[in-house]
Amino acid sequence: MRHACLGGGARLRPLLCHAVSQAGGGTDEDARAPANAIEFLHCASLVHDDLPCFDDAAERRGQPSVHAAYGESLAVLTGDALIVGAFQTLTNKSVKPAHLPALLRRISDAVSANRGIIGGQAWECEPNVVLTRYHRAKTGALFEAAARCGAIVSGQFEDHWADFGALIGEAYQVADDLHDALEARGMGKPAGQDRAHGRPNAVLTLGLPNALERLEQLLDAAFDAVPECQDPRPINSWLAAVAARLQPTNVQLPSEDPLCAEATLPDAIGEDLHAPR
Amino acid sequence: MRHACLGGGARLRPLLCHAVSQAGGGTDEDARAPANAIEFLHCASLVHDDLPCFDDAAERRGQPSVHAAYGESLAVLTGDALIVGAFQTLTNKSVKPAHLPALLRRISDAVSANRGIIGGQAWECEPNVVLTRYHRAKTGALFEAAARCGAIVSGQFEDHWADFGALIGEAYQVADDLHDALEARGMGKPAGQDRAHGRPNAVLTLGLPNALERLEQLLDAAFDAVPECQDPRPINSWLAAVAARLQPTNVQLPSEDPLCAEATLPDAIGEDLHAPR
Repeated sequence: MRHACLGGGARLRPLLCHAVSQAGGGTDEDARAPANAIEFLHCASLVHDDLPCFDDAAERRGQPSVHAAYGESLAVLTGDALIVGAFQTLTNKSVKPAHLPALLRRISDAVSANRGIIGGQAWECEPNVVLTRYHRAKTGALFEAAARCGAIVSGQFEDHWADFGALIGEAYQVADDLHDALEARGMGKPAGQDRAHGRPNAVLTLGLPNALERLEQLLDAAFDAVPECQDPRPINSWLAAVAARLQPTNVQLPSEDPLCAEATLPDAIGEDLHAPR
Repeated sequence: MRHACLGGGARLRPLLCHAVSQAGGGTDEDARAPANAIEFLHCASLVHDDLPCFDDAAERRGQPSVHAAYGESLAVLTGDALIVGAFQTLTNKSVKPAHLPALLRRISDAVSANRGIIGGQAWECEPNVVLTRYHRAKTGALFEAAARCGAIVSGQFEDHWADFGALIGEAYQVADDLHDALEARGMGKPAGQDRAHGRPNAVLTLGLPNALERLEQLLDAAFDAVPECQDPRPINSWLAAVAARLQPTNVQLPSEDPLCAEATLPDAIGEDLHAPR
């Protein structure tokens, strides 16, 4: 569990939870339990995604993946234990009893089979997937939960943060797809995995230029979706740091690249940027 | 998820939760969410236990195991989804907000790496295990949680039910070991798995006569541990049904059986029957 959680990682989701809480006047203590729970769930998803029956990835964050280091049995149990540990974390005394029902609902939904990460992962087994829905479940849901939980613990109306969270989550997934497709260096995990495993990937589906355009659209939409709040500075700082991190550098667009073959951005995807729920 | 949950099973744990709730004057509605959550977690543990990296069991409850029916990837996700689904279930409106913190704590602890099922499963990877502690974590913890949750939702003092729940859980594990070692018919899963996988098993550790004696001791102790309550009939009915189910029938004790070699019941095990915490 330590290997899975303490071996690096940008902590984007817990930092988002803290930033939204701070934007509403919340303290670090207010956001700590849901922020940690969300990071545990993210780490759990990575441990199980790396298993031989999924990505069979030997590396994660520049270190051996959990199953490579400790064997498959303990990797399955580590993921299970991190899921359970996330919900144990919500029993911490820092969680106000009045906030617990909403936190539990948002966090459990975000990783669930019906609306969350597990559903997204299961869709990878399907022959046809709507890219936007897949990304929302696999990645967007937990970002949205992080934003909502930050709002809940600081007494803000959580629905005001839903679009922002979902958009930033989708942007993150498109950026991740770009890095995977471009075999970006420095990600600490094998690149080109989506193509190798026949998984949905924005670059493979949209072509490289459209995927880059889509990332920019999503980040712009996220900026626009920050709601009125007591102090927007923490969330603007978080967003600027994330945008800098997500945008790939030194991208070349060779005209003969088969990734560029599909030239049009489907209307449906452009549309639902403006109506994300 | 349906295959894992609806393919049979005795529902001992949720029925225990309902029986303890009824013993304290609770309604079926009061106990439903925690009872279902506990059964989901039990089913999740079976799905992951059956995986190739653990028992590699092709059958469960007389049907193909989840990984045999749907493949390893979906079996991992099914177990994950049932764990998450258990905690989603606690967000049902039938759960009184005042009860949620205690329910979440008891249920998450009972399946956790530190005190629950996942810890018990991980101990199977260890060369030496204290049998009582292993059984308490792997099986007893969830029975204890079922009893405690029944008490919580009906306004009883949950600690009064802790010893009862832990004892019945340990009795169940010893009975399961007896069935495994005796290759009992009608269990719907392959028998002799503990010996094949080098796992702790009460029969292999204590010898057959002592394991049978231990089961009887544990059931007697559980009967004695039922606390004073508004209506003891539901719990006595449950306990009688379980005792009838757990005790193996037609056990022969051939004197040349190597399982009978170890003749003495270790003092430590006899002692902690009387001081189970």
